[in-house]
Amino acid sequence: MNKELIDGQPVSLKKVVLVGAGNVATHLGPALCDAGYEVVQVFSRTEASASALAGKLHCPYTTRLDMVNPEADMYIVSVKDSALEKVIPPLVSRHPDAFFVHTAGSMPMNVWKGLARHYGVLYPMQTFSKGRGVDFSTVPFFVEGSGKEEMETLKILAGQLGGKAYEATSEQRRYLHVAAVFACNFANHMYAVAEHLLALHGLPFGAMLPLIDETARKVHELSPLEAQTGPARRYDENVINRHLSMLADEPELAELYELISKNIHKFLSS
Amino acid sequence: MNKELIDGQPVSLKKVVLVGAGNVATHLGPALCDAGYEVVQVFSRTEASASALAGKLHCPYTTRLDMVNPEADMYIVSVKDSALEKVIPPLVSRHPDAFFVHTAGSMPMNVWKGLARHYGVLYPMQTFSKGRGVDFSTVPFFVEGSGKEEMETLKILAGQLGGKAYEATSEQRRYLHVAAVFACNFANHMYAVAEHLLALHGLPFGAMLPLIDETARKVHELSPLEAQTGPARRYDENVINRHLSMLADEPELAELYELISKNIHKFLSS
Repeated sequence: MNKELIDGQPVSLKKVVLVGAGNVATHLGPALCDAGYEVVQVFSRTEASASALAGKLHCPYTTRLDMVNPEADMYIVSVKDSALEKVIPPLVSRHPDAFFVHTAGSMPMNVWKGLARHYGVLYPMQTFSKGRGVDFSTVPFFVEGSGKEEMETLKILAGQLGGKAYEATSEQRRYLHVAAVFACNFANHMYAVAEHLLALHGLPFGAMLPLIDETARKVHELSPLEAQTGPARRYDENVINRHLSMLADEPELAELYELISKNIHKFLSS
Repeated sequence: MNKELIDGQPVSLKKVVLVGAGNVATHLGPALCDAGYEVVQVFSRTEASASALAGKLHCPYTTRLDMVNPEADMYIVSVKDSALEKVIPPLVSRHPDAFFVHTAGSMPMNVWKGLARHYGVLYPMQTFSKGRGVDFSTVPFFVEGSGKEEMETLKILAGQLGGKAYEATSEQRRYLHVAAVFACNFANHMYAVAEHLLALHGLPFGAMLPLIDETARKVHELSPLEAQTGPARRYDENVINRHLSMLADEPELAELYELISKNIHKFLSS
């Protein structure tokens, strides 16, 4: 890590390699370029992903870890958690003085420990899809650094990307991630079930959007417990049983319906 | 039902009694007044609710069904489904020529059949909480009428309230309702679980709002299946198992996590 970085200068980390070319890297890449960083290379085991992102960023790519550019100042690793621990040792061993960062909610910072000298975590708590732009000004970044300087550097980086930085320990971050899975992925699955049920009965999913929007808006003002409505809130067994019988053809959806209804009732009565 | 109503004149139904004083009635009442209707009475078995809504609408209230004003043109019934079938016979028998409407997603129109002459359903598919205003211009109303005139009257009424009217049969409406329970109530419960997990680890729920908003915004452009991200989409067993072990103290949440993850995987692989 060079001196400029340690002083926390915003422009000190110029050259970046993106390790991984999935949803997170695909959105971080252009934002890094906009913030004045130079993405010097993209690595991905999947050639199509590597070349697509490299094309977007006008930089070379590689599908071989031993061909990763050794001259970058920072390596940002956004790969599947299960790939992370395989990627780290060969990546770090070739350029031990660089700054290494991963973006995974669930992985502790210490995956770098004993290998890299300067490391940290930059977890953007947002849902990224390749087909859709992200406004980074709405993204909270949870950061953690191996030292004070690394932490400061990541806070500055988050700000340069347009987002807000929050410090979070590895322990807090893994709970943030599990909470995010509920609030985002699982909420989205509830939309998917709705779409499926509507399609079966010739109804357009679009009719559901005002309700989805209002449900999200409400929790800006009310807590989710206060905001809850519907048959499970009232524990209206008439409606619940009728709904369960309507879902009888799809026992997994009936099971989901019953379990969530019971859990809503439990949350509201505790 | 008087002649003006049958011709579908917007101003023909002037006097309305609200039967029920819960979340739906509390939002419909002021919107009816704004649209030029006169709410002449509020009925609720719960005196506090009846008097609160009547106070808001500057009209009398009653807690006795046999004291419901017999001179209204329209009776809008917004009560728990289980109460609906008890309320209907005594309500209708005293003013059989009026127009009777319920607002329940799950109840068929035929609950009125053989009792009332003019009847229908006006189902506002939105989540109403007493503590929060609703912009009716974002509310889809699903309407059904005992005849063409009744249907037209309800479409006009929906428009006067500021919303959009869609025709839906009782059968379609009950699937709309079950879909709405998933997209709204169950999605909201996912927010509630997130809030609970964050609170246990000293993290503010507010940090989750950008993610919740983006999750809702995404499905305006992508289908929920396309929009899905996270460990269940990738079926990243490392993360899933780690999350399950983090939820071990709350087996109901672990069960929910596992069931939803499996269901996401099933949706995406089918």
